[in-house]
Amino acid sequence: MDGRFEHELTVRYLEVDQQGVVFNAWYLAYLDDALTAFLAHRGLPYRALLDSGHDAQVVHTELDWTGALGFGDPASVAVDVAAVGTTSFTLAFEVRRDGTPVCAARTVYVCVATDGSGKRPLTPALRAALSPSAPAT
Amino acid sequence: MDGRFEHELTVRYLEVDQQGVVFNAWYLAYLDDALTAFLAHRGLPYRALLDSGHDAQVVHTELDWTGALGFGDPASVAVDVAAVGTTSFTLAFEVRRDGTPVCAARTVYVCVATDGSGKRPLTPALRAALSPSAPAT
Amino acid sequence: MDGRFEHELTVRYLEVDQQGVVFNAWYLAYLDDALTAFLAHRGLPYRALLDSGHDAQVVHTELDWTGALGFGDPASVAVDVAAVGTTSFTLAFEVRRDGTPVCAARTVYVCVATDGSGKRPLTPALRAALSPSAPAT
Amino acid sequence: MDGRFEHELTVRYLEVDQQGVVFNAWYLAYLDDALTAFLAHRGLPYRALLDSGHDAQVVHTELDWTGALGFGDPASVAVDVAAVGTTSFTLAFEVRRDGTPVCAARTVYVCVATDGSGKRPLTPALRAALSPSAPAT
Repeated sequence: MDGRFEHELTVRYLEVDQQGVVFNAWYLAYLDDALTAFLAHRGLPYRALLDSGHDAQVVHTELDWTGALGFGDPASVAVDVAAVGTTSFTLAFEVRRDGTPVCAARTVYVCVATDGSGKRPLTPALRAALSPSAPAT
Repeated sequence: MDGRFEHELTVRYLEVDQQGVVFNAWYLAYLDDALTAFLAHRGLPYRALLDSGHDAQVVHTELDWTGALGFGDPASVAVDVAAVGTTSFTLAFEVRRDGTPVCAARTVYVCVATDGSGKRPLTPALRAALSPSAPAT
Repeated sequence: MDGRFEHELTVRYLEVDQQGVVFNAWYLAYLDDALTAFLAHRGLPYRALLDSGHDAQVVHTELDWTGALGFGDPASVAVDVAAVGTTSFTLAFEVRRDGTPVCAARTVYVCVATDGSGKRPLTPALRAALSPSAPAT
Repeated sequence: MDGRFEHELTVRYLEVDQQGVVFNAWYLAYLDDALTAFLAHRGLPYRALLDSGHDAQVVHTELDWTGALGFGDPASVAVDVAAVGTTSFTLAFEVRRDGTPVCAARTVYVCVATDGSGKRPLTPALRAALSPSAPAT
């Protein structure tokens, strides 16, 4: 992946299990943090998305681990846009320890209304943030 | 404490840190689970409280540890009503491993409106659930 | 899926986000709880696996959501063995709300030594627990 | 409190419950993050403490909430040394939203051996980090 955008993360003590490595569920928290940071970097603070009455709902995610993270490790998540559809988009992620990939992931998000009324076309602001030419802020 | 009501809990693998014991923050999750179970036992499912437009908001909590919990340990939380006021109530908790106390805790809850408009007197259903004569269901 | 084994779960208040549904990362906690319950049901308490110097490490997981879980919803995770190899095995999961599927998942686990020395062939006890003829305990 | 040391934190989406505020248990995660950041700032990376065979174990904590945190709120934790004993020390914390206190907390830590053999006198490095004259790094 390209992964020009990289979100730094700090492993929490509580995220490390008795095997001494970050438990798998926390990677989904990392991806969510990275999504938020990525959209903000592309000019769309997540709160602005919510305030517009929209949210990004995860409908599919897959993760492949080739390594692990420990407490105190320098870690980051690289983010790429993999696909953009009418009501959905896909991001590719790479979680890295000191630059080395430890987990590759892909997540499909559907744009939904925050009032619970279901799917919506991607908002213009969201579509712009996901476009290759989005100006980094 | 009396602790006639005891809520069984199962330690999750992810709750155990690299020292091999449950990380402190999860005890607040256990207390919350125990509150829900206690109120249901006393005839007030938490969802009914929420549906009535009320919630119990934690304003103070204190915990003292004398032991620890590991993965697979048989564990429970005993619950007692320590005080009942006009808009607040206090519960005493004892987290136990195989019957032996590992953590004593007290939490003060304020009854609030779910619409964000602030404090409310305890609802009659909540007051009844907290009274000594509450019939266990 | 067959899903004859079904693990009941209780949604925690803290697992529900401001959209009123369980946040995606908690599903990985549910799958882990279900793995533990499934192996115990098949005669292998997870602690016995750990005590034998082995652990099951997640190397791949994928999840597809078609619904959501709210606080207080009756929920469960059905578990099936999808594949068994030399050093790895795959489980299929279905998270259900009141019997209706809300999330389908597959996870690939590798058997590793707990001393950090890497992959191991599935232990006889683990292989037996995963076999179709495993007696439910 | 003095609170000259202030650790910035980012509220995670998953930490916010269906009332739209950070669930109480996450404050203990915030305090732990702040402890780690504070010790590092005072010249003792937490990993160095662990590598020396010592850890800081929480034996008492108390929290008082006067406000709440929402997703996207600018938040921080101020840290002060409240007391230093032979084998234990106490930190005072103030969680702030945009500079305004939302939670005051105190935590008592005991210095323990990481091999599970119990209490230890504070190590010289830990004692130095907790002293008023500790040079900020």
